[in-house]
Amino acid sequence: MKNLITGAAGCIGSELAEALVARGQDVIGVDNLSSGKMEHLATVLGKSNFRFVEADLEEPSAMDRVIQGVNMVWHLAANPDVKFSEGDETNKDLRQNTLCTYNVLEAMRRNGTRKLAFSSTSAVYGLSKLQPIPEEAAFPHPISLYGATKLGCEALISAFQNLFGMQCWIFRFANIVGPKVRKRGRTVIGDFILKLRQDPRKLPILGDGKQAKSYLLSEECVEAMLFVVEHARAPVNIYNLGCDDSLEVTAIAGMVAEAMGLRGVEYEFAGGDGGWPGDVARFCLDVSAINRLGWKARHNSAEAVSRAIRSTLAAMNEAAGAGALPACKP
Amino acid sequence: MKNLITGAAGCIGSELAEALVARGQDVIGVDNLSSGKMEHLATVLGKSNFRFVEADLEEPSAMDRVIQGVNMVWHLAANPDVKFSEGDETNKDLRQNTLCTYNVLEAMRRNGTRKLAFSSTSAVYGLSKLQPIPEEAAFPHPISLYGATKLGCEALISAFQNLFGMQCWIFRFANIVGPKVRKRGRTVIGDFILKLRQDPRKLPILGDGKQAKSYLLSEECVEAMLFVVEHARAPVNIYNLGCDDSLEVTAIAGMVAEAMGLRGVEYEFAGGDGGWPGDVARFCLDVSAINRLGWKARHNSAEAVSRAIRSTLAAMNEAAGAGALPACKP
Repeated sequence: MKNLITGAAGCIGSELAEALVARGQDVIGVDNLSSGKMEHLATVLGKSNFRFVEADLEEPSAMDRVIQGVNMVWHLAANPDVKFSEGDETNKDLRQNTLCTYNVLEAMRRNGTRKLAFSSTSAVYGLSKLQPIPEEAAFPHPISLYGATKLGCEALISAFQNLFGMQCWIFRFANIVGPKVRKRGRTVIGDFILKLRQDPRKLPILGDGKQAKSYLLSEECVEAMLFVVEHARAPVNIYNLGCDDSLEVTAIAGMVAEAMGLRGVEYEFAGGDGGWPGDVARFCLDVSAINRLGWKARHNSAEAVSRAIRSTLAAMNEAAGAGALPACKP
Repeated sequence: MKNLITGAAGCIGSELAEALVARGQDVIGVDNLSSGKMEHLATVLGKSNFRFVEADLEEPSAMDRVIQGVNMVWHLAANPDVKFSEGDETNKDLRQNTLCTYNVLEAMRRNGTRKLAFSSTSAVYGLSKLQPIPEEAAFPHPISLYGATKLGCEALISAFQNLFGMQCWIFRFANIVGPKVRKRGRTVIGDFILKLRQDPRKLPILGDGKQAKSYLLSEECVEAMLFVVEHARAPVNIYNLGCDDSLEVTAIAGMVAEAMGLRGVEYEFAGGDGGWPGDVARFCLDVSAINRLGWKARHNSAEAVSRAIRSTLAAMNEAAGAGALPACKP
C-alpha cells in the first residue's frame, strides 16, 4: 500500500504518517510548511518507507510530481485557521481548501488513484438545530468561510467519487487537541497558556465563555481514521469524528489555570455568543455512526483537553520557553 | 432600487430583466455572452432603466466595474451545461459556478451591497432518498460537478451572509423550460426536436427513458423569484422552485412527436439509469415551503413541457430553420 498524506507536517498529518510507517506501509508526505513543521516528522524522516516532498497544492501540477503509484490519498492539507479576522483575504479558505482539494481530486483522476480520505470539519454544519449533530439528518448551513469551503470540498469529492469511480472517507472532525506544538497561539489551550504566562492574574476570554465544543485527542483522531478506512466499505463514507459530549470554554480556562498552579485568576469576558465571527459557539457531535462501526473515543472532551493541557505544558517546558504552542485545529 | 443581473442574456436572466424593467426598476445586465444571447435582451435594450455590460465574472475585477450603487444582485451566471462529457475540463463548473460566485460575493462585500438572489439547482441534492425532496431534511450529496459546485456556491453565500451581514435568497431550480431559443440542443425538448427533424422515424433517447424530473416554465420561475424576494424576510431564504410532480422522458418524446405531427416514431434507448454520468435520473421537489409562502406553479410538469414544446417549435419556425433550439437549463 502506497499512501500520500497532504499536510503531512501538521499535527494530525504527522501522527498519521507515524502510524502508517509503523504499520510498514509506504508513505509520501507532502506539505508546503506554511503551518506544518519539519520537526513534527522527526520520528519518520530517515525511515526507508517514508519520503517527504515540500510542495504547495495550490500549484495545480504539484500533485503530479508525487502521485505516481499512490493507492490512497489522505488529504489533510488545509488552511488551519478557522477564524476569519478583519484584514484576512476572503478567498484564503477557498484557495487553500476547495481549490487544493480540486487539485488533489483531479490529480487522482488523471493518475487512476481511487481511494481518498479527507479531513472535513464539524464546521460544515453551521448552527444546527439538532444537537448532538448527526451526519445525515439536515441540510448544512456553514457560517464560516472555513466551514463553507470544506463543504465545497465534500461536494466535489462526492461528485468525483460518482463520476470517476473513487472510494472516499470523509471525516468531520470535532476540535482536535494534542501534544504537537507550534509557535502561534491559535487554539484555546495554547491561547490561555500564553495569556496566563504573560499575566497570571487575569485571563481575557473570547465571547461569554459559554462556548461549548467537542474535543478529541489527535492520537485518537488518527486511530479513528485508520479504523474507519479499514471497516467502512461504501463508495462514500462520512463520519463525525469526536466523543459524545462537549466542554465549555470557561471550564478549559479553569483547567489550564489549575495545571499551571494558578489560583484566583480573574476572567475577562469579551462578551457575545461566539468567540469570533463565524464561530459555532455550541455544538456536540452525534458519534453513534462511528460507534456502531466499532470505534469509540476513549476520552471524553474534558479528559482529552486535560491531557492536551498537560502535554502542551510539557512540550513548552521542553522547548525552554521558546514560545511554542499547540498546533492542532478542528 | 438598482438591480444587477449576472447572466442577463440567458433565458431566465433576460426574462427577469424584462420583469424588473417593466416594474420601473433600474437594471444593469451583465453577461459574457458565452451562452447568453443579445437577442434575448431585445425587449429591454434601449430602455432608459436598462444597461448592458459585457463582462466575464471569472475576472475578479469585472464586478467592480458595474456594482457601484447596486442594492440587489441577481446572480444567475453559471456554466449552463449540467452534463459532464468525456474531454470536458473537470474544473469548468468550479470556475464558472463557485469561483464566479465568490467574485460576486467579494465585490458585494467591498461595495456594501447586501441583497443577493442566487440561482441554485435541485442538482445539489444528488440521489435523495426522500422524494419529493424537501429543502432542509437531509445532508446533500451531489453526484455531478454542476451540483457540487452549486452547493459550494450556496455554502459561500451562507458564510458571507453571516460574516458580512447580507440577506440572501437561494433558489433550487427544477428543470426550467421556456420559449427562449439558442443553437445548441442541450435540453431534452430541443434535443428531441432536432433529432426528429433529422430523422422523423426514429428517436435516440438517453438512458432507459424512465428518467423523471420536475419542470417549470421560465416565466413562472421569474415570477416565483420575484415573489419570494418580496415575501421571504429571513437572513437566508432557501426555496425549491418547481411544481409538485415530475414527468418521464419517454412521455416528453411522445409529446414532441405529437406536436410535430409525427406518428409511429421508434424509440431507441441508450440504456442505463441516467441520461449521462452525474444525471439525477428521477426526482421530484417538495415545494410546500414556497406554496406556504403564497406562490404555486400554475402548470404541472406535463403542462409546462407541453407549452415549452409549442413555443420552441414556434420560435424555430420563426427562425426559419436556422437551427435555433431551446436555451433554458435547470
